[in-house]
Amino acid sequence: MEEFRGELSRLGFQMEHLGVGYEEIQADTLEEVIGQGLKELGERGLDNFIIDDSGLFIDALNGFPGVYSAYALRTLGCGGILKLMEGIESRGAHFKCCIGARIQGVGEIVVCDIAKGEITEEKRGGGGFGFDPVFRPEGEPRTYAEMPLDEKNRISHRGMAIRSFSRKLEERMD
Amino acid sequence: MEEFRGELSRLGFQMEHLGVGYEEIQADTLEEVIGQGLKELGERGLDNFIIDDSGLFIDALNGFPGVYSAYALRTLGCGGILKLMEGIESRGAHFKCCIGARIQGVGEIVVCDIAKGEITEEKRGGGGFGFDPVFRPEGEPRTYAEMPLDEKNRISHRGMAIRSFSRKLEERMD
Repeated sequence: MEEFRGELSRLGFQMEHLGVGYEEIQADTLEEVIGQGLKELGERGLDNFIIDDSGLFIDALNGFPGVYSAYALRTLGCGGILKLMEGIESRGAHFKCCIGARIQGVGEIVVCDIAKGEITEEKRGGGGFGFDPVFRPEGEPRTYAEMPLDEKNRISHRGMAIRSFSRKLEERMD
Repeated sequence: MEEFRGELSRLGFQMEHLGVGYEEIQADTLEEVIGQGLKELGERGLDNFIIDDSGLFIDALNGFPGVYSAYALRTLGCGGILKLMEGIESRGAHFKCCIGARIQGVGEIVVCDIAKGEITEEKRGGGGFGFDPVFRPEGEPRTYAEMPLDEKNRISHRGMAIRSFSRKLEERMD
């Protein structure tokens, strides 16, 4: 919320948390989840809102936990991911964030961004949340959880997606 | 389909595969998935249909893979489940099947049944499908995948749920 606010206030938008839920569908891609969310909320008459969703996609696990990252975190945690990755040398993974919005006078916008990186051999760092302690972004010695929040936000999948979103919104407003 | 047909033909029902999909929502319970499916298909005007969904719920993994069993099977397979269970002594699990239906003159029916058992230490058997090779039902030396299909159907979560469904349907028709 604060990340969105910081980026969108310069475009003259005021934001508030609506606390409105939507059915997240079982799908293999975040694009489908966000697309369905936009559709459902639109059908319910909302015409000025932003939704976002993120996931960790691990190459060697065929994209698991992907769109079900929140559920995998609740049930398996970081420990489960490390266990699944035991003995696996190819540790490539990416975090992905998709943002969808319907904005009065602008229409519908969907943007996605990814941050490539690797699954570490053990949990590192006390910051961040979710799978941050086991994800080390490319070109960085630290995991997401070892980075100060403002630094993580500069390079993270969500930070990138928010800036992409803001740029696209600005273009559309011209 | 054949299991349903075998059980419901004695009540005078003829069945065909409709090939109609519905959005499976992200939820922690099969009841929610089935409830939402009934609602969506009902809203789309269908008034004579049966849907079902199943999942494997592992105690030591906080119910994982649960409602996301199909996705976990596609990405992690039986090997991933065995890896997550490595070194874990408490191997209790259950398969659960929920069936939902809306039937003309009868109304809505939802039934669920479970088969308790354990996650084996290795894959066993070439029959069945999904996680059958790593699930050994209570009181049985064999995994689901080691049992002939008709024998598995007699004791399986789906077999039980289909018979519960059939009994409930029969009561409602009296």
